[in-house]
Amino acid sequence: MQLLKDMIAEKGKVFPGNILKVDSFLNHQIDVDFLNEVGREYYNRFKDDGVNKILTIEASGIGIACIAAQHFHVPVVFAKKNKTKNIASNVYSANVVSYTHSREYTVIVSEQFLGPEDRVIILDDFLANGCAMMGLIDIVKQSGATLVGVGAVIEKGFQRGGDMLRKEGIRVESLAVIDSMTDDAIIYRD
Amino acid sequence: MQLLKDMIAEKGKVFPGNILKVDSFLNHQIDVDFLNEVGREYYNRFKDDGVNKILTIEASGIGIACIAAQHFHVPVVFAKKNKTKNIASNVYSANVVSYTHSREYTVIVSEQFLGPEDRVIILDDFLANGCAMMGLIDIVKQSGATLVGVGAVIEKGFQRGGDMLRKEGIRVESLAVIDSMTDDAIIYRD
Repeated sequence: MQLLKDMIAEKGKVFPGNILKVDSFLNHQIDVDFLNEVGREYYNRFKDDGVNKILTIEASGIGIACIAAQHFHVPVVFAKKNKTKNIASNVYSANVVSYTHSREYTVIVSEQFLGPEDRVIILDDFLANGCAMMGLIDIVKQSGATLVGVGAVIEKGFQRGGDMLRKEGIRVESLAVIDSMTDDAIIYRD
Repeated sequence: MQLLKDMIAEKGKVFPGNILKVDSFLNHQIDVDFLNEVGREYYNRFKDDGVNKILTIEASGIGIACIAAQHFHVPVVFAKKNKTKNIASNVYSANVVSYTHSREYTVIVSEQFLGPEDRVIILDDFLANGCAMMGLIDIVKQSGATLVGVGAVIEKGFQRGGDMLRKEGIRVESLAVIDSMTDDAIIYRD
């Protein structure tokens, strides 16, 4: 998506440790008119697939999923990061290891909001090692819903998450796949 | 806002301890077409006030703020709940005591995204004791921005937060103010 690459070129910042900061428009401050174009792009990619629900995870995925969902006119469900040691009953849950924050957490989704009748896409801001995405995919499987595909606004192609999911036959629609990045240049996959 | 009251009557559930569950349409599963009406209502209330930024807090406020922001065509900034003991430099921070989760946490906003040139509204899903809202107001003050007003979709009027803010002269625009609730009936303030 050229507009995304232009935004990254103009406003993104690369930091040591393969960190790409896009917090001026994507995941701390949010440019909603830009996000509307992201939502339109997802709609164009998935509009013929009978999607009736969009799943995401708190916090950065929520804005993306909500604005995309306006194009589909379907509900969003966001997985919650569990804050207590006890898991409530009547929820699907999955463990996620976060390398960014060096910790493990549990994500939960109420059983009420996901079931065998659902055709789901999962949207998030980043796809890197894929751990959060795998947790969400696990929850979709537990629910009996159909996973139509997953979408990350930005995929770090040099980490293994996206390609691992593709090998499993999952449809991955990233709007920009970064193959390498340095202070000077970001190289995108074709 | 009558549509909101209708949604609460149809889909909300009251639980002991003054808990109102609206997670089927507002803060776990999100009905984006409903949220668009919420956003339109906020726009109607604040459209003449020169708002150029909407501040909210992760996680439940993000969808509301993003969809409202589409009506204003202004950016959203969401305050992050700090996950580490160290506070990064170049951020505004405020402490929040959460009665719901019986814990204290810090919220942070990067100094880059809020400053004296901004005219801000703060939006969130609930206003109860007002602790999260006061943390966000504190951050707006630190930044030198002008606080135009605050809006909660649902205000628990029987808790002290909203009225305390009004006493301080802050404009509070709640879309429904609940004065009391039981299993059988929810009484709204006129």
